[in-house]
Amino acid sequence: MTLVLGGARSGKSRYAEGLIEALPGPWLYVATAQAWDDEMRARIAEHRARRPAPWETVDAPRDLASVIRRAPAGRPVLVDCLTLWLTNAMLDEDADLAAERDALVESCRTAAGPMVLVSNEVGLSIVPENALARRFRDEAGRLHQRLAAMADRVVLVVAGLPMILKGEAR
Amino acid sequence: MTLVLGGARSGKSRYAEGLIEALPGPWLYVATAQAWDDEMRARIAEHRARRPAPWETVDAPRDLASVIRRAPAGRPVLVDCLTLWLTNAMLDEDADLAAERDALVESCRTAAGPMVLVSNEVGLSIVPENALARRFRDEAGRLHQRLAAMADRVVLVVAGLPMILKGEAR
Amino acid sequence: MTLVLGGARSGKSRYAEGLIEALPGPWLYVATAQAWDDEMRARIAEHRARRPAPWETVDAPRDLASVIRRAPAGRPVLVDCLTLWLTNAMLDEDADLAAERDALVESCRTAAGPMVLVSNEVGLSIVPENALARRFRDEAGRLHQRLAAMADRVVLVVAGLPMILKGEAR
Repeated sequence: MTLVLGGARSGKSRYAEGLIEALPGPWLYVATAQAWDDEMRARIAEHRARRPAPWETVDAPRDLASVIRRAPAGRPVLVDCLTLWLTNAMLDEDADLAAERDALVESCRTAAGPMVLVSNEVGLSIVPENALARRFRDEAGRLHQRLAAMADRVVLVVAGLPMILKGEAR
Repeated sequence: MTLVLGGARSGKSRYAEGLIEALPGPWLYVATAQAWDDEMRARIAEHRARRPAPWETVDAPRDLASVIRRAPAGRPVLVDCLTLWLTNAMLDEDADLAAERDALVESCRTAAGPMVLVSNEVGLSIVPENALARRFRDEAGRLHQRLAAMADRVVLVVAGLPMILKGEAR
Repeated sequence: MTLVLGGARSGKSRYAEGLIEALPGPWLYVATAQAWDDEMRARIAEHRARRPAPWETVDAPRDLASVIRRAPAGRPVLVDCLTLWLTNAMLDEDADLAAERDALVESCRTAAGPMVLVSNEVGLSIVPENALARRFRDEAGRLHQRLAAMADRVVLVVAGLPMILKGEAR
């Protein structure tokens, strides 16, 4: 399992796609984006336009863990991205966030095939004034630490270039 | 002296504790947090819960330089964290910030024993709208540069993983 | 061509100046700052005070591409910084941002002499609430990716210390 972290427009998605496309297809793209507004719809469209077959796309804005569990054995899986899933989960007032997070981590741990997880690194700024934003970056940071601890490779992408945090460069 | 930088919930405190705990104890934990509200109190409690004996904890929300100067010779010292100290100093209208900063840097330069300083990297975002926030990240950046220049090792922690900026990996 | 990225007060400008000053002078400093207010004026003055002759300073808050194209052949050029230029371009309602960005990238690609470009990495935080700020960090991220792809060296400066993203350390 590879965890690809990066800032906004850092090229992390493209880098992650390249990792999967180096493997034999077909590939499963697990999209967590939820189209709340036009800006988000435009971003989703732009991302999809980059992925012709043999990519198969599955939307998983909320139930990410079970989509990962149900992925065909051996199929390379790209999850893009964890921070959007976390946003959706935190905005869902009925969600049991701790349980969902544990289920997600467990699904990643037991995944049968190669998997690349993409997520936004969001903690390298001053403390946000907004309490929800503070909670969000705490949750994201904790999730990244747990996944990084069990990942084979962790990469931070800056300006399209990978910095290897864990595992071998390639 | 080691400077450990990292974002929110990056695992920087835990990494820094590991550096100190690799040395013979007892260890001195210098806590700079000031409990302004319940959120802060919860964070402080969570951090303390991770530190049983042989950790000794000293609170230094304001007079950090003299606490560092008075540390028993040879005792490993962990300061967690500089950005909280800087926040407290900047919110104290009677403080002479430049003088306090110089005293802090000097106390670190002349410290007798091994020391690990933890601080938040806060500059990797768009310019904050709030003028105090802008001043804060300027002050933090300048302080980090001065301490990094004289440190033996500087580490940036991302998702619990260390990136070595200066000195040897270990 | 070298791209130097870094956060606020990360020491990126000083690091970039050192790269140019290691080359035979005279050196051309291309300043993109526009003095909108006193805070900005103070920052510009502080930066200028660090640059005696043989630095020659040219202001290019808007027409950066043509200043780069007109630089004397072989003259080492420092551009500080791209994010200020991008700010100026985005605040100019009459600007054709895509065309200006393409012209800038092209001027960098065809520059005759050694060039160092400084820019702020601004994407490693939570999503800004302000729509213009979101657009700004998207534009900055895309520009960095394009320039990084064609640069010989890319460096991320943290606390005054360089992390090499591309090219050789030196």
